Amino acid sequence: MSQDNKKEFQLELAKYLSEKDFIYGPEPELYGPIAGFYTYGLVGKAMKNKLEEVIRESFTSNNFFEIEYPLISPQVVWEASGHLKGFNDPIVNCSKCKATFRADKLIEETTGISADSFKDEELINTIKEHEILCPNCKGRFNLEIQRQSLMMKTTIGKDTIAYNRPETATTTYLPFKHYVNFFRGKLPFTVFQIGKAFRNEISPRQHLLRQREFTQAEAQIFISAEQKNNFEEFSKNQNEILPLWTEALQKSKSKPINLTLKEALEKKVLKNQAYAWAILLAYNTFKSMGIPKEKMRLRQHHSDEKAFYADDAWDLEIELNSFGWTECCGIHDRTTYDLEQHSKYSKQDLSVRLENGEKVTPHVIEIAFGVDRPFYALLDIAFFRRENDSQRTVLSLPPKIAPIQVGVLPLMKKDNLPKKAEEVKKELKNYRIYYDESGSIGKRYSRLDAIGVPFCITIDHDTLKDNTVTIRERDSLKQTRVPIKELNEKIGDLLKE
Amino acid sequence: MSQDNKKEFQLELAKYLSEKDFIYGPEPELYGPIAGFYTYGLVGKAMKNKLEEVIRESFTSNNFFEIEYPLISPQVVWEASGHLKGFNDPIVNCSKCKATFRADKLIEETTGISADSFKDEELINTIKEHEILCPNCKGRFNLEIQRQSLMMKTTIGKDTIAYNRPETATTTYLPFKHYVNFFRGKLPFTVFQIGKAFRNEISPRQHLLRQREFTQAEAQIFISAEQKNNFEEFSKNQNEILPLWTEALQKSKSKPINLTLKEALEKKVLKNQAYAWAILLAYNTFKSMGIPKEKMRLRQHHSDEKAFYADDAWDLEIELNSFGWTECCGIHDRTTYDLEQHSKYSKQDLSVRLENGEKVTPHVIEIAFGVDRPFYALLDIAFFRRENDSQRTVLSLPPKIAPIQVGVLPLMKKDNLPKKAEEVKKELKNYRIYYDESGSIGKRYSRLDAIGVPFCITIDHDTLKDNTVTIRERDSLKQTRVPIKELNEKIGDLLKE
Repeated sequence: MSQDNKKEFQLELAKYLSEKDFIYGPEPELYGPIAGFYTYGLVGKAMKNKLEEVIRESFTSNNFFEIEYPLISPQVVWEASGHLKGFNDPIVNCSKCKATFRADKLIEETTGISADSFKDEELINTIKEHEILCPNCKGRFNLEIQRQSLMMKTTIGKDTIAYNRPETATTTYLPFKHYVNFFRGKLPFTVFQIGKAFRNEISPRQHLLRQREFTQAEAQIFISAEQKNNFEEFSKNQNEILPLWTEALQKSKSKPINLTLKEALEKKVLKNQAYAWAILLAYNTFKSMGIPKEKMRLRQHHSDEKAFYADDAWDLEIELNSFGWTECCGIHDRTTYDLEQHSKYSKQDLSVRLENGEKVTPHVIEIAFGVDRPFYALLDIAFFRRENDSQRTVLSLPPKIAPIQVGVLPLMKKDNLPKKAEEVKKELKNYRIYYDESGSIGKRYSRLDAIGVPFCITIDHDTLKDNTVTIRERDSLKQTRVPIKELNEKIGDLLKE
Repeated sequence: MSQDNKKEFQLELAKYLSEKDFIYGPEPELYGPIAGFYTYGLVGKAMKNKLEEVIRESFTSNNFFEIEYPLISPQVVWEASGHLKGFNDPIVNCSKCKATFRADKLIEETTGISADSFKDEELINTIKEHEILCPNCKGRFNLEIQRQSLMMKTTIGKDTIAYNRPETATTTYLPFKHYVNFFRGKLPFTVFQIGKAFRNEISPRQHLLRQREFTQAEAQIFISAEQKNNFEEFSKNQNEILPLWTEALQKSKSKPINLTLKEALEKKVLKNQAYAWAILLAYNTFKSMGIPKEKMRLRQHHSDEKAFYADDAWDLEIELNSFGWTECCGIHDRTTYDLEQHSKYSKQDLSVRLENGEKVTPHVIEIAFGVDRPFYALLDIAFFRRENDSQRTVLSLPPKIAPIQVGVLPLMKKDNLPKKAEEVKKELKNYRIYYDESGSIGKRYSRLDAIGVPFCITIDHDTLKDNTVTIRERDSLKQTRVPIKELNEKIGDLLKE
């Protein structure tokens, strides 16, 4: 899509998400919105819960254990992690209207140049060269970069300076000694968190993609250097295929290449077995959320783009109709950086004794993403592909993550049909259902199609006689007659398909 | 239990919860703890998830819809809600060591007098009369009450003052217009949130019961004045029984009385049908979490204890071994207060048109509790009742909320038993399982007993021959031989019992 068509689609999608109760905002809508804060609405929150269940299932079924660390930690934690010093955005001010912009994003949006890793000087030079003007008033920019911290500051008690966390990862490292005890000192072990994080961006845009408050899901593999290339899960999965877009392929403007894990290691595209498996796990997690394979690729960070401590870094990108290819997950080999930093600042020993007696600081391989981006991606894809005729808009969300699985609709609001519907609701108690008895049946179907409900059950006069109901499938419009007693199983089967 | 025995039990329980990976903290443990912040650990977080599932199920099966509003909102929201002005604690300072204490809690803990609703003067007089001295240094207190705001302040962007929310309720009221649209203007409708809230308490104690950061679950019933006494769910449930401890019974030092909803209304113990049902829903939600009936009572607020806008207010209290009877949930009839406040401050119309054409501001009945308190209560009760012999400590957590449902244990780490265990894990993929292959089988049982795992599956040499395994039940120690293929169903049945 052209840039203009993308913009149009973005606006149309945002309007739809608000009207259909997926996402409200920016909040507080009632008092005048502030950029970067959104609400998951009456329909959207149910879908977000489903998505988090899928993520949790993907990690726990691979032996990851979850924790929940506080969102607020005192200053010393963020000194150790490096966030207080290094976690900031380059900003420029308009000389005329004084508006403030994030310099790299400004360049990206006006020229298409990726300026993520630019130094201050490069940013200024690019703004000069391309004669970028203020999007608000067309004024010239002051040619000076300021650094604005992304940390949201607060106070505990009377005067203890603290911060709302900018990521979950750091807080997953802190209880390290408890993990060593629980896993009886045996590496590798794996821990994850799903929870809120905060970034005080100067001018967040792009709807759910760049918020000031968002939900992260970050998984950490604690592993010894030696185990990285002697990793059981690798051998089990070495023939799985990944679409890898290496730095070289990016530079030669070629497409990603499909390689098995094994080939990727042999060709030295990926550095070690554990890291290769982490990329596969990220990719599989996104697949299990219902993101189509053909919409995903894995992009290697350029050597000048990586964090200084990272041994390797790849992004999982999703192709969005509204924003093009978008980073939705990062897989990073953080080496011993984090545990060493926290050991240094806390003056505590954060090492593990291996079976051979050697004491080592574990490496950390991280899978880091937000829940908001795949949420947005699923709706971006479903909304783009929607069926649209004069009668109905149909959102074909994957049944597994649809906010509501089953609509329960008595044909009429009389003749005991609503009472009979109670039986159906009871039989379907394992599913998220939506009961609706008012309005024409056609209107009720449309309403549920529009929020992606995959199955509707209709209770009619025959139901009173023979205890059967009609299942209507959202996508095929197929209608099947089924005994109430078999409903639970039947819906279960349909959901699996 | 005596005060000393309670203290001892508190410490013993806190130690156990940390050692068994339920709760770490206060955090950051690694850098030196700050009171009021705790982590749900590798075992505890799985149990918290279960608890939240039960709460969610209790609300959604009663037609409540969930939303997720941002944790941070700008100042104007908290001016309208009344928190900026009124949400603070009375504090006193020691004249000698300068230590700061919350005056009402200080009185409560040293004299046993409930000082929750005391005015500043009463607080000072009580400290004087009872000659309360500083618990730290035995110094005298300055006889002056200061008010410390409980709000955690932060900044959005460059200079927009904002706060981490002190409760979820206010943020559930803000998208009111969206609800009216979704529910097609038809009262009553019902919305809830489960999420973090923050209170900058001056000296939080009592472990999970009084934290600076905690998880709330708050459900709101939006209803017209007229519907309060014409409420469908009431008629369906009017014969359900509640243990009600009225203001009069409290004053006469009598016990709570068991009344049906119907009787409670007839005797004017409860004011209206919808409110009576809300109390029942709160009570049933706590029952479904596994809190024993005999450990709960419903305590009416005294007339001088209620918020000025509340028409009626009751607390659900749980009897803890560590702290005695403890407030764990509040049910409040907030009348039209909140919507009128937000309408006034936002200058927007927050009314609904009834079927008879009349425009009204809905009343709000609220069920408000934290997830942390029932979590603590369940462990307090299970730990007190634990089986303890030289061999094993057994935590008899209700199977439904046990952090791990099934242990999968190959008898030995050889002869293909671990490989066979893979089959068992696959069959049990609907449950949270813990796989352990190292150490003696007895030690492995003990380890799982100690964190409340209700069932263990043992894979032995017979399994290789006939595909059967042993299920061992935690509480009865009963062992049953079951074919692997029937495991999923069998465990399902056992969990239901």
